[in-house]
Amino acid sequence: MNLYAARVRVNRVTTPGPSVTQARRRAPARQGTLREHNLALVLRHVLDAPAAPPSRAEVATATGLTRGAVSALVDLLIGARLVAELPPTATARAGRPAVPLVPARGTVVALGAEVNVDYVGVRALDLAGDVLAHTVEDGDFRHSDPAAVLARLARLVGRVRAAVPSDARTAGLCLALPGLVDRVTGPLRLAPNLGWRDVDVAALLTAHPEVDGLTVRLANEADLAARAEVRAGVAGDSFLYVSGEVGIGAALVLDGEVFAGRHGWGGELGHTVVDPRGPRCTCGASGCLEQYAGKDALLRAAGRDVEDPVDALLAAAAAGDEGAARALVSGGEALGLALANVVNLVDVERVVLGGIYAPLAPWLAEAVTAQLRTRVLSAPWARAQVGVAAGGAHAAMTGAALVVLRAVADDPSAWLPPAP
Amino acid sequence: MNLYAARVRVNRVTTPGPSVTQARRRAPARQGTLREHNLALVLRHVLDAPAAPPSRAEVATATGLTRGAVSALVDLLIGARLVAELPPTATARAGRPAVPLVPARGTVVALGAEVNVDYVGVRALDLAGDVLAHTVEDGDFRHSDPAAVLARLARLVGRVRAAVPSDARTAGLCLALPGLVDRVTGPLRLAPNLGWRDVDVAALLTAHPEVDGLTVRLANEADLAARAEVRAGVAGDSFLYVSGEVGIGAALVLDGEVFAGRHGWGGELGHTVVDPRGPRCTCGASGCLEQYAGKDALLRAAGRDVEDPVDALLAAAAAGDEGAARALVSGGEALGLALANVVNLVDVERVVLGGIYAPLAPWLAEAVTAQLRTRVLSAPWARAQVGVAAGGAHAAMTGAALVVLRAVADDPSAWLPPAP
Repeated sequence: MNLYAARVRVNRVTTPGPSVTQARRRAPARQGTLREHNLALVLRHVLDAPAAPPSRAEVATATGLTRGAVSALVDLLIGARLVAELPPTATARAGRPAVPLVPARGTVVALGAEVNVDYVGVRALDLAGDVLAHTVEDGDFRHSDPAAVLARLARLVGRVRAAVPSDARTAGLCLALPGLVDRVTGPLRLAPNLGWRDVDVAALLTAHPEVDGLTVRLANEADLAARAEVRAGVAGDSFLYVSGEVGIGAALVLDGEVFAGRHGWGGELGHTVVDPRGPRCTCGASGCLEQYAGKDALLRAAGRDVEDPVDALLAAAAAGDEGAARALVSGGEALGLALANVVNLVDVERVVLGGIYAPLAPWLAEAVTAQLRTRVLSAPWARAQVGVAAGGAHAAMTGAALVVLRAVADDPSAWLPPAP
Repeated sequence: MNLYAARVRVNRVTTPGPSVTQARRRAPARQGTLREHNLALVLRHVLDAPAAPPSRAEVATATGLTRGAVSALVDLLIGARLVAELPPTATARAGRPAVPLVPARGTVVALGAEVNVDYVGVRALDLAGDVLAHTVEDGDFRHSDPAAVLARLARLVGRVRAAVPSDARTAGLCLALPGLVDRVTGPLRLAPNLGWRDVDVAALLTAHPEVDGLTVRLANEADLAARAEVRAGVAGDSFLYVSGEVGIGAALVLDGEVFAGRHGWGGELGHTVVDPRGPRCTCGASGCLEQYAGKDALLRAAGRDVEDPVDALLAAAAAGDEGAARALVSGGEALGLALANVVNLVDVERVVLGGIYAPLAPWLAEAVTAQLRTRVLSAPWARAQVGVAAGGAHAAMTGAALVVLRAVADDPSAWLPPAP
């Protein structure tokens, strides 16, 4: 363990609700509040710099702080190994060359984990957003035992932690789950495809030595994948993200933030109705979208085993297997119908196909677009664009790690070395 | 006409987007900006006083302005006939008795109008929210000529304006329409049940002398009815408002504001799909909710003429007409299915049944609730409540007038008498 471990030794279970900093903003100012605030302000400018790494002078201009104050704060952030300096570059004007500031690499470990219906995995990101380590294992977690699955996840956490630089500090872990995570009270309420209901996931996970001592957060997988998509910067800052797996989740992103509703349970696209007389769903209702366009449904419609990989389905369709192509098109029609309902309801301009829908998009997207054209009332004036996710495979793990990084960025003062 | 008419003589067509005041907040401060801002601040405190009418001293405490400044601003607002004084009341402490401040009654006329599929009407509210005059005429405006319908509306506007106090000043008119109103560019895009498409409604309306010179705003009827519901204060500040008429609109209200999406076209609940193989809809698609639970659909299912009033259907059901009762229950099931999709998607806690669904709720609500219980994934943990609208009949007209009143409250300085 390292110097700072004691600060995060207590297991805190949190969801990505109001941050420490947000809570502090509502509280009366205390001694040190100002420095904490300005430290976070400077760090955010370095982490979020859209183009070239900024110099101290540029941070001062952007934040309105004095150059002296910025220099002192940057020195603290360098000392805490949150910020690093690049070699000086010559400036156009006379004077000392500017020193570009960048997020420190390999010094902070943010763990993004995921339990989904057919895989479990962990990804470690540093402050620069680089993947330090990553592992995914396939499995079949339908109707699984939460304790057993979380024990397996804990082993993967241990493996990933062993693979990152030994002097890096772990900032925490966020776990993506395919179901209803209560953002107010914390636990997983329901993951229908896992068969999990009212499970204290964080308690089960932190019981393992690989996780003990870490701050653990839980969130819905589609919400997290949507955060990775925002970060990827391709879809703009307002869109509907669709996460296709065995289940189908969605996240409405507005101005760069996930809109998750009152309890954080929004985005359950997979359980919107395609046909009320349709097949029984794992949720107990009938005719839900998952039964038409979820991974298992697509494979079944193509006459394949539900444990087949999506790549096999894709290869079959590409090789001229008409059953496979038909299954994908009719899955796309069902998905498009459900998405037309969403666009009619919330007037969103862009739909991003993620999860298995990203590789399947060449076979699905046309049917989706056709439904949006036919069924969205406003389509003649502004047609919702259908795009493919840029967040990469297992985007929810990336999004989960980003939640951990945001917590670091919101409260960098917790990372300062103790005063001598 | 009156002293201040010249100020609003130009026909401006606006939708309830960013207000003048909001635009001003983003602009550099000009001379007079501070007084305008504080004038609006004081007026809002008088208009929105939740309990007893406040005194000047209470307004000073609430706003943080000095008593002297508040007194001067209140005097201006009284001079502009936006605020009035009640007789002084004795205070507990020694000193001058407090003078309660209230919105002026009968001095400002906000016109809320509506063209719907089977009625057209106008309602005049004053700053106190009291109805000064009101008129509604039934009709059949399916596939109607916009110019003819708006000429009829203009006559109603004239009738209502003739009925309000002659020294009252008209602040503007907002028109509720059952379709897609573009909040960015202004015109009505589509009202499927009227058969109107790309109609410059404001230009047609202001061509009539009864409307000429007024600022005209357009908005979706469900969005406006939802504003009236917020004002009624019964449903809280976050809910889904459902406006049942021939068409079915909805408005998602979050923290007291209508969420209308990118272009203002959200809430098209009536065109979400109940059954993809269902009957053809006026929008061109098939199986839309309107074809199962719109007013015409309910009347047809009960074996009645579509021009029958809802009261007749209600009376038949109450008198034991099984066909009528069955039609209402199956309409409720279809509505509940569509609402379950919404709750799964946006995690809203309360659904408010408005329009014809308010009087029909005793026959519909149980079926709606049953669908929400069966189909909403999170129902076992937090069941969405189904309530009846408190905004009264023709709530969209009230909401439309409230939009006009808000514009007055945002910019009271436009109402001051010209400097001598």
